[in-house]
Amino acid sequence: MTSSTESWHRVNYATPRSFGTTLKANLKETFFPDDPFHQFKNEPVSCRFLKWTQYFVPISEWLPKYSFELFKYDLLAGITIASLAIPQGISYAKLANIPPIIGLYSSFVPPLIYAVFGSSKHLAVGTVAACSLLIAATIEEKVSANDNMPLYLSLVFTATLFAGLVQTSLGLLRLGILVDFLSHSTITGFMGGTAIIICLQQLKGMLGLKHFTTHTDVVSVLRAIFQNRKEWKWESAVVGIIFLIFLQFTRFVKNKKPKLFWVSAIAPMVTIIVGCLFAYFSHADKHDIQIVGHLSKGINPSSIHLLNFDPTYISAPIKAGVITAMISLAEGIAIGRSFAIIRNEQIDGNKEMIAIGLMNIFGSFASCYLTTGPFSRTAVNFNAGCKTAMSNVVMSICMMLTLLFLAPLFSYTPLVSLSAIIMSAMLGLIDYDKAYHLFKTDKFDFCICMTAFFGVSLISMDIGLMLSVGLALIRALLYVARPTTCKLGNIPETALYRDVEQYPGAHGNPGILILKLGSPIYFANCNYIRERILRWIRDEHSLSNSKGNEIEYLLLELGGITSIDITGVETLLEIRRCVEAKGIMMILVNPRLGVLEKLMVTKSIDTVGKEYVFLTIEDAIDACKFSLKCSDQ
Amino acid sequence: MTSSTESWHRVNYATPRSFGTTLKANLKETFFPDDPFHQFKNEPVSCRFLKWTQYFVPISEWLPKYSFELFKYDLLAGITIASLAIPQGISYAKLANIPPIIGLYSSFVPPLIYAVFGSSKHLAVGTVAACSLLIAATIEEKVSANDNMPLYLSLVFTATLFAGLVQTSLGLLRLGILVDFLSHSTITGFMGGTAIIICLQQLKGMLGLKHFTTHTDVVSVLRAIFQNRKEWKWESAVVGIIFLIFLQFTRFVKNKKPKLFWVSAIAPMVTIIVGCLFAYFSHADKHDIQIVGHLSKGINPSSIHLLNFDPTYISAPIKAGVITAMISLAEGIAIGRSFAIIRNEQIDGNKEMIAIGLMNIFGSFASCYLTTGPFSRTAVNFNAGCKTAMSNVVMSICMMLTLLFLAPLFSYTPLVSLSAIIMSAMLGLIDYDKAYHLFKTDKFDFCICMTAFFGVSLISMDIGLMLSVGLALIRALLYVARPTTCKLGNIPETALYRDVEQYPGAHGNPGILILKLGSPIYFANCNYIRERILRWIRDEHSLSNSKGNEIEYLLLELGGITSIDITGVETLLEIRRCVEAKGIMMILVNPRLGVLEKLMVTKSIDTVGKEYVFLTIEDAIDACKFSLKCSDQ
Repeated sequence: MTSSTESWHRVNYATPRSFGTTLKANLKETFFPDDPFHQFKNEPVSCRFLKWTQYFVPISEWLPKYSFELFKYDLLAGITIASLAIPQGISYAKLANIPPIIGLYSSFVPPLIYAVFGSSKHLAVGTVAACSLLIAATIEEKVSANDNMPLYLSLVFTATLFAGLVQTSLGLLRLGILVDFLSHSTITGFMGGTAIIICLQQLKGMLGLKHFTTHTDVVSVLRAIFQNRKEWKWESAVVGIIFLIFLQFTRFVKNKKPKLFWVSAIAPMVTIIVGCLFAYFSHADKHDIQIVGHLSKGINPSSIHLLNFDPTYISAPIKAGVITAMISLAEGIAIGRSFAIIRNEQIDGNKEMIAIGLMNIFGSFASCYLTTGPFSRTAVNFNAGCKTAMSNVVMSICMMLTLLFLAPLFSYTPLVSLSAIIMSAMLGLIDYDKAYHLFKTDKFDFCICMTAFFGVSLISMDIGLMLSVGLALIRALLYVARPTTCKLGNIPETALYRDVEQYPGAHGNPGILILKLGSPIYFANCNYIRERILRWIRDEHSLSNSKGNEIEYLLLELGGITSIDITGVETLLEIRRCVEAKGIMMILVNPRLGVLEKLMVTKSIDTVGKEYVFLTIEDAIDACKFSLKCSDQ
Repeated sequence: MTSSTESWHRVNYATPRSFGTTLKANLKETFFPDDPFHQFKNEPVSCRFLKWTQYFVPISEWLPKYSFELFKYDLLAGITIASLAIPQGISYAKLANIPPIIGLYSSFVPPLIYAVFGSSKHLAVGTVAACSLLIAATIEEKVSANDNMPLYLSLVFTATLFAGLVQTSLGLLRLGILVDFLSHSTITGFMGGTAIIICLQQLKGMLGLKHFTTHTDVVSVLRAIFQNRKEWKWESAVVGIIFLIFLQFTRFVKNKKPKLFWVSAIAPMVTIIVGCLFAYFSHADKHDIQIVGHLSKGINPSSIHLLNFDPTYISAPIKAGVITAMISLAEGIAIGRSFAIIRNEQIDGNKEMIAIGLMNIFGSFASCYLTTGPFSRTAVNFNAGCKTAMSNVVMSICMMLTLLFLAPLFSYTPLVSLSAIIMSAMLGLIDYDKAYHLFKTDKFDFCICMTAFFGVSLISMDIGLMLSVGLALIRALLYVARPTTCKLGNIPETALYRDVEQYPGAHGNPGILILKLGSPIYFANCNYIRERILRWIRDEHSLSNSKGNEIEYLLLELGGITSIDITGVETLLEIRRCVEAKGIMMILVNPRLGVLEKLMVTKSIDTVGKEYVFLTIEDAIDACKFSLKCSDQ
């Protein structure tokens, strides 16, 4: 390679893009990364209208193509998830301290709405344990369910409305980005913690306790259980344990033979039916085994008149609504996505938010409380071979028939069998393997997970969640505050320059220090980058001193830096001034588009000198060697 | 270049570093980026002890070498800053609603402490307007200075103690990183907003008002001024305007001829002296011009017994202490650093925090309130030619003499001349040029600046500051949530691959899509990266379709990625699965140390296949072409 400047590659100093152009590009990347409207481009107007309708109301896309062949699959899947929906509906409603019938209502209207607006083919709609408990814990702070059930219930519906509104607006504003900040590690820890506290709470039902605490943390719950030792009922406990063993056994069967998933899917229904029969024939209520009690026939009544915006209480439903909106979105979208990936389809997160939001808004008008796409039910739906959202419609029709004709039969359900169903479901949510995997592979992720787990189980659900999200944010901010810098060296017999720590054989050029800076250069890391570069120079000096040659050039490889702010630009100039005082020239290599534009807009490029900016490390080193040779002569 | 695999460069699959090693490296980068103890390495024990002392008590390093030659410079600088300290001390104490004498006390003890522990040679210690007002605004929320001065004063000392404790602990815990999150843009906006509200507040003194508001926002202050129109005193206003014009004129002189900096440095002292003489001879108090009133002789009394930890009030001093601690650290360290850079010296931010913290802790024991290194005084000190922290000692001695002998003379100082001094100082803090520069070069930085400015001037100082810091954090988080990805192309006649947007001449290879991913791959951007890559493939497909060749290889250039978490690793595998279903092979190029280690620890490297990881794009493309050719045959 020659040292003549003509063979060097040219850095492109095109005029920086206008503010409008970059703003548009940035907004698109931030809010429309998946470019959802790409299919509408270059289409005639009529066609475009059709595509818009298909985009916003997915049912209009798949229903016309729907065939009886597909329906056979969806019918089977729909009946399977309905058999899961009935026991779970009743159980989780008890967890939210609301009448069990609300749980059944909640599996009727929302699935219909989702079938119209939802884009996932596998998501099965239903209530979830964590959100049920969270709603109860938040609203109990203001109103006790035992003291004033009508008011409590109206606040639950209001919380559902708020959750729906939050979800819909997040979707419309394309703020799916917010849900992305709930990481897998947080969700794993949160689910585990929630499972623990919900299991412990079920000891109330298992032991037939009448008095209990409204707190959710482990310490309060254990204290409540042991302080009420006199209320313990052995009959109840025995029945509960038998049910639990049965449910866990079916889960064990499913894990051994995944094809037998339906065994564990219908097990809760079997538990309920056996429980009802047992309670009916043994007059269980006289043997200290509590039952659900009266369930009236009929489909969902309207609940619009129940929505309560009284300023005295409004803070509780708002808080419950916002937190559960985020959690249920995170769960619903994550699950929809993971099954879509298996089938290699794509889910638009923001569109899903709108669908989930609408189903909660309409749900709150029709005596339903918060629903989303729970993991267990969606997995069953998927395994049962569902092909479209029609399986939700089938489930919905099954629920309607149940509500119209069968509801009173479930009034004999013993509470203890509900507790067994919940406990069994929760035991499956504690993901030991995932936690162990995190521990083995990424200690920081493990800490985030454990913060959620212990925060939820020892303090409260919302605080645990926030601590964990906070820790994850700190990790992201730490990344920005401490970008990696490394020294590059030449890998022998090649023209490659790589991290000398990663490729120990790589060696430097005498008199030249090459550093690769990490992205971004922002206000938060400017001091760090300056100090770190000065330290590299110091370290290199103490190395060189023994060898007897001084650093004359500092090459900063900027190829990895995608963003820089004003403080960052000032810092580059400061570094230049600092090293210049030590007799070292600063050279920039391969600045990326955003960085070069910022350097040009601030006119810093003139301070640095365009002749000190190169496109490749080789060119820069060539130039340095050339000039070193000249000064030697 | 041949296609034989032997000529390809090898990726280094060395065993990942142990958790201990990486943890130690990360902790060092996070908390000790400047490696402050490097000088102690390889030293004998006795020498090390000496160096430790010199490190923690810098005076022990420079005092033994101190000479009369240096002292001449420091004496001059010390007297100059003392002449600024007296008027500023009295003025800012009025701003904090505390007796003026406290302002003088605060320029006696803290400079002595700083001279012992501080490492900056140019920093001049003193009180600052913004923190004075912030302390007053926060403590007035609990106790009114007019109603209960002793209690108010005790809370001010307590706030100072808390500020000192916060600062010292931040320094000891090496949490200088927190102060880095106050960006230049935030500080510019905050200073501007504070200057506006302080100027408006001085209209009270200028117009000789007796009734005023304790709120600091522009609207409340303007309302207070115009509602009390009957109290306006024209005599006071005339005197004030004359002083203000004089002070602004000296500032103008300094800006024109920087060598005449001393004119503007002693102008406040001249204003005070002229004001005193004028008030004394014209019996100003009888002409409706208010004076400072009695100032007693004697140096700082102890204030340990005044520290007040009464739980009723404790929240106010804690809040004031924490916020002012951060602001005064940001100001003190930034200023120390900028002058150190001019002289090409280095300042250890964490050590400075300890020094500033100690000076506030001891200050709070000796009737001083919050001090730091204000910009104006430090600039004067620097310009007056100070050589070491001895100039602070000289200032301190001047203040002692003033307190012992001259204090009563200042009791005739008219309040209006204090207002003129404060207004003049504040007008200099509004940095129009900087704001304009931000507007021109970085709109986001400009928004951060304006948020601080309008937040402070229209809402309150603490809320304005927090909003601005929040916005800056959102920018940092947005960076993490939306890392730039770009398509690389081959620059004709070279072996270089660069961003096709930046180098429009660069063209792709048929059948191969090369993407450079931005750093980091974290939970917050996993969905984005997946969707974005699928969109690149879609876009490329619609381009290729017209040309008639399909993508067969997806090359991900990871050279810019320095960090990846577990969710990120899972996402890479998901992407692989997604593109594989489309018949595309995923190839990784140049994974950096941290990324490769994570891939190896999670065993994902085996899923990806080591044969699909290359060290350079060229190697990867060679391999792709080779395999394309084979499949063609």
